[in-house]
Amino acid sequence: MTEHDPKERAVNGPIPPKAVVSRLSLYLRELHHLERDGQETTSSTQLGKMLGFTDAQVRKDLAYFGQFGYPGIGYRCEELIEAIRRILGTNRSWPVAIIGAGNLGHALLGYRGFRQQGFEIVAAFDADPGQVGNRIESIPVYAMSDLAKLVDQLGIRLAIVAVPGAAAQVVAEQLVAAGVEGILNFAPVTLSLPAHVHAVGVDLAIELEQLSFAVVNKRDKQ
Amino acid sequence: MTEHDPKERAVNGPIPPKAVVSRLSLYLRELHHLERDGQETTSSTQLGKMLGFTDAQVRKDLAYFGQFGYPGIGYRCEELIEAIRRILGTNRSWPVAIIGAGNLGHALLGYRGFRQQGFEIVAAFDADPGQVGNRIESIPVYAMSDLAKLVDQLGIRLAIVAVPGAAAQVVAEQLVAAGVEGILNFAPVTLSLPAHVHAVGVDLAIELEQLSFAVVNKRDKQ
Repeated sequence: MTEHDPKERAVNGPIPPKAVVSRLSLYLRELHHLERDGQETTSSTQLGKMLGFTDAQVRKDLAYFGQFGYPGIGYRCEELIEAIRRILGTNRSWPVAIIGAGNLGHALLGYRGFRQQGFEIVAAFDADPGQVGNRIESIPVYAMSDLAKLVDQLGIRLAIVAVPGAAAQVVAEQLVAAGVEGILNFAPVTLSLPAHVHAVGVDLAIELEQLSFAVVNKRDKQ
Repeated sequence: MTEHDPKERAVNGPIPPKAVVSRLSLYLRELHHLERDGQETTSSTQLGKMLGFTDAQVRKDLAYFGQFGYPGIGYRCEELIEAIRRILGTNRSWPVAIIGAGNLGHALLGYRGFRQQGFEIVAAFDADPGQVGNRIESIPVYAMSDLAKLVDQLGIRLAIVAVPGAAAQVVAEQLVAAGVEGILNFAPVTLSLPAHVHAVGVDLAIELEQLSFAVVNKRDKQ
Protein backbone atom coordinates (compact mmCIF):
# COMPACT_ATOMS: atom_id res chain seq x y z
CA MET A 1 0.00 0.00 0.00
CA THR A 2 1.22 3.49 -0.80
CA GLU A 3 2.29 5.57 2.19
CA HIS A 4 0.21 8.72 2.48
CA ASP A 5 2.23 11.82 3.10
CA PRO A 6 0.34 14.26 5.34
CA LYS A 7 2.46 17.04 3.88
CA GLU A 8 1.00 16.43 0.40
CA ARG A 9 -2.01 18.55 1.32
CA ALA A 10 -1.97 21.72 -0.75
CA VAL A 11 -4.72 23.75 0.91
CA ASN A 12 -4.02 24.87 4.46
CA GLY A 13 -7.11 26.95 5.23
CA PRO A 14 -10.68 25.68 5.06
CA ILE A 15 -11.39 23.49 2.05
CA PRO A 16 -13.04 25.68 -0.61
CA PRO A 17 -16.45 24.83 -2.13
CA LYS A 18 -16.54 22.18 -4.84
CA ALA A 19 -17.61 24.75 -7.44
CA VAL A 20 -14.41 26.74 -6.79
CA VAL A 21 -12.22 23.67 -7.20
CA SER A 22 -13.96 22.78 -10.41
CA ARG A 23 -13.42 26.31 -11.78
CA LEU A 24 -9.75 25.92 -10.86
CA SER A 25 -9.60 23.09 -13.40
CA LEU A 26 -11.15 25.38 -16.02
CA TYR A 27 -8.58 28.12 -15.30
CA LEU A 28 -5.82 25.55 -15.67
CA ARG A 29 -7.20 24.41 -19.03
CA GLU A 30 -7.35 27.98 -20.38
CA LEU A 31 -3.86 28.75 -19.03
CA HIS A 32 -2.54 25.74 -20.95
CA HIS A 33 -4.19 27.13 -24.10
CA LEU A 34 -2.59 30.54 -23.51
CA GLU A 35 0.83 28.99 -22.88
CA ARG A 36 0.52 26.91 -26.04
CA ASP A 37 -0.18 30.16 -27.91
CA GLY A 38 3.05 31.65 -26.53
CA GLN A 39 1.40 34.08 -24.10
CA GLU A 40 3.51 34.62 -20.95
CA THR A 41 1.12 36.63 -18.77
CA THR A 42 -2.63 36.97 -18.42
CA SER A 43 -5.23 38.79 -16.32
CA SER A 44 -8.38 37.93 -14.39
CA THR A 45 -10.28 39.82 -17.10
CA GLN A 46 -8.85 37.68 -19.91
CA LEU A 47 -9.28 34.40 -18.02
CA GLY A 48 -12.83 35.38 -17.10
CA LYS A 49 -13.66 36.31 -20.67
CA MET A 50 -12.42 32.95 -21.98
CA LEU A 51 -14.82 31.18 -19.63
CA GLY A 52 -17.75 33.55 -19.36
CA PHE A 53 -16.98 34.55 -15.74
CA THR A 54 -16.45 38.04 -14.31
CA ASP A 55 -12.90 39.13 -13.44
CA ALA A 56 -14.04 39.48 -9.80
CA GLN A 57 -15.06 35.81 -9.80
CA VAL A 58 -11.64 34.74 -11.06
CA ARG A 59 -9.82 36.81 -8.43
CA LYS A 60 -12.08 35.57 -5.64
CA ASP A 61 -11.63 31.92 -6.67
CA LEU A 62 -7.84 32.16 -6.81
CA ALA A 63 -7.71 34.08 -3.50
CA TYR A 64 -8.82 30.88 -1.75
CA PHE A 65 -5.42 29.43 -2.47
CA GLY A 66 -3.01 32.36 -2.17
CA GLN A 67 -1.76 35.51 -3.84
CA PHE A 68 -0.76 34.84 -7.45
CA GLY A 69 -0.96 38.14 -9.34
CA TYR A 70 1.67 40.88 -9.78
CA PRO A 71 0.67 44.57 -9.86
CA GLY A 72 0.94 45.91 -13.40
CA ILE A 73 1.68 42.43 -14.81
CA GLY A 74 -1.22 40.18 -13.89
CA TYR A 75 -0.61 36.45 -13.64
CA ARG A 76 2.47 34.75 -15.05
CA CYS A 77 0.95 31.80 -16.96
CA GLU A 78 3.67 29.27 -16.20
CA GLU A 79 3.74 30.16 -12.51
CA LEU A 80 -0.05 30.02 -12.14
CA ILE A 81 -0.14 26.69 -13.98
CA GLU A 82 2.40 25.28 -11.56
CA ALA A 83 0.48 26.64 -8.57
CA ILE A 84 -2.86 25.22 -9.71
CA ARG A 85 -1.32 21.85 -10.52
CA ARG A 86 0.14 21.72 -7.03
CA ILE A 87 -3.24 22.62 -5.50
CA LEU A 88 -5.11 20.03 -7.58
CA GLY A 89 -2.44 17.44 -6.88
CA THR A 90 -1.57 17.02 -10.57
CA ASN A 91 2.02 18.25 -10.25
CA ARG A 92 2.83 14.55 -10.06
CA SER A 93 1.83 11.59 -12.19
CA TRP A 94 -1.11 9.49 -10.94
CA PRO A 95 -1.24 5.87 -12.04
CA VAL A 96 -4.91 5.07 -12.75
CA ALA A 97 -6.78 1.78 -13.25
CA ILE A 98 -9.83 1.31 -15.47
CA ILE A 99 -12.37 -1.35 -14.57
CA GLY A 100 -14.38 -2.51 -17.56
CA ALA A 101 -12.88 -2.89 -21.01
CA GLY A 102 -16.10 -2.61 -23.00
CA ASN A 103 -17.03 0.17 -25.43
CA LEU A 104 -16.69 2.98 -22.93
CA GLY A 105 -13.55 1.51 -21.36
CA HIS A 106 -12.01 1.33 -24.83
CA ALA A 107 -12.81 4.98 -25.52
CA LEU A 108 -11.38 6.05 -22.16
CA LEU A 109 -8.20 4.02 -22.75
CA GLY A 110 -7.74 5.94 -25.98
CA TYR A 111 -8.48 9.36 -24.43
CA ARG A 112 -5.30 11.45 -24.64
CA GLY A 113 -6.50 14.21 -22.31
CA PHE A 114 -5.82 12.12 -19.21
CA ARG A 115 -2.08 11.81 -19.65
CA GLN A 116 -1.71 15.50 -20.51
CA GLN A 117 -3.09 16.33 -17.06
CA GLY A 118 -0.88 13.84 -15.22
CA PHE A 119 -3.17 10.81 -15.16
CA GLU A 120 -1.62 7.69 -16.61
CA ILE A 121 -3.82 4.67 -17.13
CA VAL A 122 -1.55 1.78 -16.24
CA ALA A 123 -3.91 -1.17 -16.06
CA ALA A 124 -7.35 -2.27 -17.23
CA PHE A 125 -9.42 -4.98 -15.57
CA ASP A 126 -12.35 -6.96 -16.92
CA ALA A 127 -14.57 -9.76 -15.67
CA ASP A 128 -14.66 -11.34 -19.15
CA PRO A 129 -11.90 -14.01 -19.45
CA GLY A 130 -11.92 -13.40 -23.23
CA GLN A 131 -10.62 -9.85 -22.62
CA VAL A 132 -7.93 -10.79 -20.10
CA GLY A 133 -4.45 -10.84 -21.62
CA ASN A 134 -5.39 -8.40 -24.40
CA ARG A 135 -3.77 -5.01 -24.78
CA ILE A 136 -5.90 -1.96 -25.57
CA GLU A 137 -3.95 1.11 -26.63
CA SER A 138 -0.93 -0.82 -25.26
CA ILE A 139 -2.53 -1.07 -21.78
CA PRO A 140 -2.77 -4.68 -20.53
CA VAL A 141 -6.18 -6.08 -19.48
CA TYR A 142 -6.00 -8.09 -16.25
CA ALA A 143 -8.42 -10.39 -14.43
CA MET A 144 -10.34 -8.90 -11.49
CA SER A 145 -8.61 -11.44 -9.24
CA ASP A 146 -5.32 -9.59 -9.85
CA LEU A 147 -6.78 -6.23 -8.78
CA ALA A 148 -5.49 -6.01 -5.19
CA LYS A 149 -2.00 -7.19 -6.13
CA LEU A 150 -1.62 -4.70 -8.99
CA VAL A 151 -3.14 -1.74 -7.11
CA ASP A 152 -0.48 -2.35 -4.49
CA GLN A 153 2.41 -2.96 -6.91
CA LEU A 154 1.62 0.00 -9.17
CA GLY A 155 0.70 2.41 -6.37
CA ILE A 156 -2.78 3.01 -7.82
CA ARG A 157 -4.96 5.39 -5.78
CA LEU A 158 -7.49 6.44 -8.45
CA ALA A 159 -9.71 4.21 -10.56
CA ILE A 160 -12.28 4.65 -13.31
CA VAL A 161 -15.38 2.44 -13.19
CA ALA A 162 -16.77 1.75 -16.66
CA VAL A 163 -18.88 -1.35 -15.95
CA PRO A 164 -22.67 -1.79 -16.25
CA GLY A 165 -24.77 -0.33 -13.43
CA ALA A 166 -25.59 -3.71 -11.92
CA ALA A 167 -21.89 -4.53 -11.40
CA ALA A 168 -20.67 -1.14 -10.21
CA GLN A 169 -21.21 -1.39 -6.42
CA VAL A 170 -19.44 -4.76 -6.19
CA VAL A 171 -16.54 -3.45 -8.28
CA ALA A 172 -16.34 -0.31 -6.11
CA GLU A 173 -16.11 -2.45 -2.99
CA GLN A 174 -13.29 -4.47 -4.53
CA LEU A 175 -11.48 -1.21 -5.33
CA VAL A 176 -11.92 0.06 -1.78
CA ALA A 177 -10.68 -3.24 -0.34
CA ALA A 178 -7.62 -2.97 -2.61
CA GLY A 179 -6.83 0.49 -1.21
CA VAL A 180 -8.14 2.81 -3.95
CA GLU A 181 -9.09 6.25 -2.58
CA GLY A 182 -10.84 7.94 -5.49
CA ILE A 183 -13.32 6.58 -8.04
CA LEU A 184 -14.52 8.20 -11.27
CA ASN A 185 -17.81 6.40 -11.81
CA PHE A 186 -19.45 6.17 -15.24
CA ALA A 187 -22.05 3.60 -14.15
CA PRO A 188 -25.53 5.13 -13.74
CA VAL A 189 -25.80 4.31 -10.03
CA THR A 190 -24.86 6.10 -6.82
CA LEU A 191 -22.05 4.18 -5.12
CA SER A 192 -22.15 3.59 -1.39
CA LEU A 193 -18.57 4.09 -0.16
CA PRO A 194 -16.71 4.56 3.13
CA ALA A 195 -16.11 8.21 4.14
CA HIS A 196 -12.42 8.19 3.19
CA VAL A 197 -13.08 7.15 -0.41
CA HIS A 198 -14.17 9.85 -2.86
CA ALA A 199 -16.32 9.36 -5.92
CA VAL A 200 -17.14 11.61 -8.85
CA GLY A 201 -20.04 10.39 -10.94
CA VAL A 202 -20.37 11.03 -14.66
CA ASP A 203 -23.83 10.00 -15.82
CA LEU A 204 -24.10 10.92 -19.48
CA ALA A 205 -27.90 10.68 -19.60
CA ILE A 206 -28.10 13.10 -16.66
CA GLU A 207 -25.95 15.62 -18.53
CA LEU A 208 -28.37 15.43 -21.45
CA GLU A 209 -31.33 15.87 -19.09
CA GLN A 210 -29.80 19.10 -17.84
CA LEU A 211 -29.65 20.28 -21.43
CA SER A 212 -33.22 19.33 -22.24
CA PHE A 213 -34.35 21.17 -19.09
CA ALA A 214 -32.45 24.29 -20.20
CA VAL A 215 -33.87 24.10 -23.70
CA VAL A 216 -37.47 23.46 -22.62
CA ASN A 217 -37.40 26.14 -19.94
CA LYS A 218 -35.46 28.65 -22.03
CA ARG A 219 -33.23 29.14 -19.06
CA ASP A 220 -30.89 32.13 -19.28
CA LYS A 221 -27.28 31.06 -19.25
CA GLN A 222 -25.53 31.62 -15.93
CA MET B 1 -36.70 24.31 -38.37
CA THR B 2 -38.76 22.95 -35.47
CA GLU B 3 -41.47 25.24 -34.15
CA HIS B 4 -40.91 26.07 -30.49
CA ASP B 5 -44.00 25.76 -28.38
CA PRO B 6 -44.03 28.38 -25.61
CA LYS B 7 -46.34 26.08 -23.65
CA GLU B 8 -43.65 23.38 -23.42
CA ARG B 9 -42.08 25.21 -20.48
CA ALA B 10 -42.53 23.13 -17.34
CA VAL B 11 -41.41 25.55 -14.64
CA ASN B 12 -43.61 28.59 -14.16
CA GLY B 13 -41.93 30.30 -11.22
CA PRO B 14 -38.31 31.46 -11.15
CA ILE B 15 -35.88 28.97 -12.69
CA PRO B 16 -34.31 26.96 -9.85
CA PRO B 17 -30.53 26.78 -9.34
CA LYS B 18 -28.59 24.39 -11.54
CA ALA B 19 -27.66 22.22 -8.56
CA VAL B 20 -31.36 21.61 -7.84
CA VAL B 21 -32.05 20.61 -11.45
CA SER B 22 -29.12 18.25 -11.40
CA ARG B 23 -30.35 16.63 -8.18
CA LEU B 24 -33.74 16.21 -9.87
CA SER B 25 -31.99 13.90 -12.36
CA LEU B 26 -30.54 11.90 -9.48
CA TYR B 27 -33.98 11.54 -7.84
CA LEU B 28 -35.36 10.33 -11.16
CA ARG B 29 -32.58 7.74 -11.47
CA GLU B 30 -33.24 6.36 -7.98
CA LEU B 31 -37.02 6.35 -8.55
CA HIS B 32 -36.45 4.23 -11.65
CA HIS B 33 -34.41 1.81 -9.53
CA LEU B 34 -37.20 1.64 -6.93
CA GLU B 35 -39.85 1.10 -9.61
CA ARG B 36 -37.76 -1.67 -11.19
CA ASP B 37 -37.64 -3.31 -7.75
CA GLY B 38 -41.43 -3.22 -7.58
CA GLN B 39 -41.71 -0.47 -4.96
CA GLU B 40 -44.81 1.69 -5.42
CA THR B 41 -44.19 4.48 -2.92
CA THR B 42 -41.16 6.12 -1.33
CA SER B 43 -40.27 8.92 1.09
CA SER B 44 -37.89 11.87 1.19
CA THR B 45 -35.95 9.93 3.84
CA GLN B 46 -35.48 6.90 1.59
CA LEU B 47 -34.62 8.95 -1.50
CA GLY B 48 -32.17 11.03 0.53
CA LYS B 49 -30.55 7.93 2.01
CA MET B 50 -29.99 6.42 -1.45
CA LEU B 51 -28.11 9.56 -2.48
CA GLY B 52 -26.48 10.73 0.72
CA PHE B 53 -28.75 13.79 1.10
CA THR B 54 -30.93 14.77 4.05
CA ASP B 55 -34.70 14.29 3.79
CA ALA B 56 -35.09 18.08 4.19
CA GLN B 57 -32.92 18.61 1.11
CA VAL B 58 -35.08 16.26 -0.95
CA ARG B 59 -38.30 17.99 0.14
CA LYS B 60 -36.86 21.45 -0.47
CA ASP B 61 -35.64 20.51 -3.96
CA LEU B 62 -38.97 19.03 -5.01
CA ALA B 63 -40.90 21.99 -3.55
CA TYR B 64 -39.41 24.18 -6.31
CA PHE B 65 -41.61 22.36 -8.77
CA GLY B 66 -44.83 21.66 -6.90
CA GLN B 67 -46.45 19.50 -4.24
CA PHE B 68 -45.85 15.81 -4.89
CA GLY B 69 -46.19 13.96 -1.57
CA TYR B 70 -49.27 12.51 0.13
CA PRO B 71 -49.67 12.61 3.93
CA GLY B 72 -49.15 9.15 5.39
CA ILE B 73 -48.09 7.72 2.00
CA GLY B 74 -45.09 9.72 0.80
CA TYR B 75 -44.42 9.90 -2.90
CA ARG B 76 -46.00 7.58 -5.45
CA CYS B 77 -42.98 6.48 -7.52
CA GLU B 78 -44.73 6.31 -10.89
CA GLU B 79 -46.37 9.71 -10.39
CA LEU B 80 -43.15 11.40 -9.25
CA ILE B 81 -41.27 9.86 -12.19
CA GLU B 82 -43.84 11.29 -14.58
CA ALA B 83 -43.68 14.70 -12.91
CA ILE B 84 -39.87 14.88 -12.98
CA ARG B 85 -39.74 13.74 -16.59
CA ARG B 86 -42.19 16.47 -17.50
CA ILE B 87 -40.09 19.06 -15.63
CA LEU B 88 -36.84 17.89 -17.25
CA GLY B 89 -38.50 17.72 -20.65
CA THR B 90 -37.84 13.99 -21.01
CA ASN B 91 -41.51 12.96 -21.14
CA ARG B 92 -40.99 13.05 -24.89
CA SER B 93 -38.34 11.52 -27.13
CA TRP B 94 -35.47 13.82 -28.20
CA PRO B 95 -33.72 13.02 -31.46
CA VAL B 96 -30.00 13.67 -30.89
CA ALA B 97 -27.05 14.00 -33.27
CA ILE B 98 -23.45 13.01 -32.49
CA ILE B 99 -20.63 14.86 -34.20
CA GLY B 100 -17.43 12.83 -34.33
CA ALA B 101 -17.44 9.08 -34.93
CA GLY B 102 -14.04 8.35 -33.38
CA ASN B 103 -13.37 6.26 -30.27
CA LEU B 104 -15.51 8.36 -27.96
CA GLY B 105 -18.27 8.80 -30.55
CA HIS B 106 -18.37 5.01 -30.96
CA ALA B 107 -18.69 4.49 -27.23
CA LEU B 108 -21.47 7.07 -26.98
CA LEU B 109 -23.33 5.52 -29.92
CA GLY B 110 -23.29 2.23 -28.00
CA TYR B 111 -24.38 3.78 -24.69
CA ARG B 112 -27.79 2.39 -23.78
CA GLY B 113 -28.51 4.87 -21.00
CA PHE B 114 -29.44 7.62 -23.44
CA ARG B 115 -32.46 5.91 -24.97
CA GLN B 116 -33.76 4.81 -21.58
CA GLN B 117 -34.03 8.49 -20.61
CA GLY B 118 -35.72 9.54 -23.83
CA PHE B 119 -32.68 10.55 -25.91
CA GLU B 120 -32.46 8.77 -29.23
CA ILE B 121 -29.31 9.19 -31.26
CA VAL B 122 -30.61 9.36 -34.81
CA ALA B 123 -27.56 10.51 -36.79
CA ALA B 124 -23.77 10.66 -36.55
CA PHE B 125 -21.59 13.07 -38.51
CA ASP B 126 -17.89 12.92 -39.24
CA ALA B 127 -15.41 14.99 -41.22
CA ASP B 128 -13.58 11.84 -42.38
CA PRO B 129 -14.95 10.72 -45.80
CA GLY B 130 -13.85 7.17 -44.89
CA GLN B 131 -16.42 7.12 -42.08
CA VAL B 132 -19.31 8.57 -44.08
CA GLY B 133 -21.82 5.94 -45.18
CA ASN B 134 -20.88 3.55 -42.36
CA ARG B 135 -23.35 2.47 -39.71
CA ILE B 136 -22.28 2.33 -36.07
CA GLU B 137 -24.68 0.52 -33.76
CA SER B 138 -27.11 0.83 -36.71
CA ILE B 139 -26.83 4.66 -36.68
CA PRO B 140 -25.79 6.09 -40.09
CA VAL B 141 -22.70 8.30 -40.32
CA TYR B 142 -23.26 11.37 -42.53
CA ALA B 143 -20.98 14.02 -44.02
CA MET B 144 -20.81 17.38 -42.21
CA SER B 145 -22.22 19.00 -45.36
CA ASP B 146 -25.52 17.19 -44.69
CA LEU B 147 -25.79 18.55 -41.14
CA ALA B 148 -28.23 21.46 -41.67
CA LYS B 149 -30.53 19.41 -43.90
CA LEU B 150 -30.75 16.49 -41.46
CA VAL B 151 -31.11 18.62 -38.34
CA ASP B 152 -34.12 20.18 -40.02
CA GLN B 153 -35.58 16.94 -41.39
CA LEU B 154 -35.15 14.96 -38.18
CA GLY B 155 -36.15 17.80 -35.82
CA ILE B 156 -32.85 17.63 -33.95
CA ARG B 157 -32.46 20.21 -31.14
CA LEU B 158 -29.72 18.53 -29.06
CA ALA B 159 -26.27 17.42 -30.22
CA ILE B 160 -23.23 15.73 -28.70
CA VAL B 161 -19.81 17.04 -29.72
CA ALA B 162 -17.15 14.30 -29.60
CA VAL B 163 -14.49 15.85 -31.84
CA PRO B 164 -10.92 16.93 -30.93
CA GLY B 165 -10.57 20.23 -29.08
CA ALA B 166 -9.20 22.08 -32.10
CA ALA B 167 -12.31 21.32 -34.16
CA ALA B 168 -14.97 21.85 -31.50
CA GLN B 169 -15.72 25.57 -31.87
CA VAL B 170 -16.16 25.33 -35.64
CA VAL B 171 -18.43 22.31 -35.23
CA ALA B 172 -20.43 24.12 -32.55
CA GLU B 173 -20.97 27.07 -34.89
CA GLN B 174 -22.18 24.72 -37.62
CA LEU B 175 -24.62 23.20 -35.13
CA VAL B 176 -25.91 26.61 -34.07
CA ALA B 177 -26.33 27.66 -37.70
CA ALA B 178 -28.31 24.46 -38.31
CA GLY B 179 -30.69 25.35 -35.46
CA VAL B 180 -29.41 23.13 -32.61
CA GLU B 181 -30.27 24.60 -29.18
CA GLY B 182 -28.32 22.41 -26.75
CA ILE B 183 -24.80 20.94 -26.97
CA LEU B 184 -23.22 18.27 -24.79
CA ASN B 185 -19.55 19.00 -25.32
CA PHE B 186 -16.86 16.38 -24.69
CA ALA B 187 -14.06 18.41 -26.27
CA PRO B 188 -11.70 19.95 -23.68
CA VAL B 189 -12.45 23.56 -24.67
CA THR B 190 -15.00 26.14 -23.59
CA LEU B 191 -17.36 26.85 -26.46
CA SER B 192 -18.36 30.39 -27.30
CA LEU B 193 -22.07 30.27 -28.15
CA PRO B 194 -24.98 32.67 -28.61
CA ALA B 195 -27.12 33.25 -25.52
CA HIS B 196 -30.02 31.07 -26.70
CA VAL B 197 -27.84 27.98 -27.13
CA HIS B 198 -26.99 25.95 -24.05
CA ALA B 199 -23.91 23.85 -23.52
CA VAL B 200 -22.96 21.31 -20.89
CA GLY B 201 -19.28 20.42 -20.87
CA VAL B 202 -17.94 17.02 -19.84
CA ASP B 203 -14.16 17.19 -19.55
CA LEU B 204 -13.00 13.82 -18.30
CA ALA B 205 -9.57 15.04 -17.21
CA ILE B 206 -11.25 17.75 -15.11
CA GLU B 207 -13.36 15.13 -13.35
CA LEU B 208 -10.19 13.24 -12.44
CA GLU B 209 -8.56 16.47 -11.21
CA GLN B 210 -11.48 16.97 -8.83
CA LEU B 211 -10.78 13.50 -7.47
CA SER B 212 -7.06 14.03 -7.06
CA PHE B 213 -7.81 17.29 -5.22
CA ALA B 214 -10.18 15.45 -2.88
CA VAL B 215 -7.67 12.67 -2.25
CA VAL B 216 -4.70 14.98 -1.71
CA ASN B 217 -6.61 17.36 0.53
CA LYS B 218 -8.49 14.62 2.40
CA ARG B 219 -11.62 16.60 1.82
CA ASP B 220 -14.63 15.48 3.81
CA LYS B 221 -17.39 14.27 1.57
CA GLN B 222 -20.27 16.73 1.21
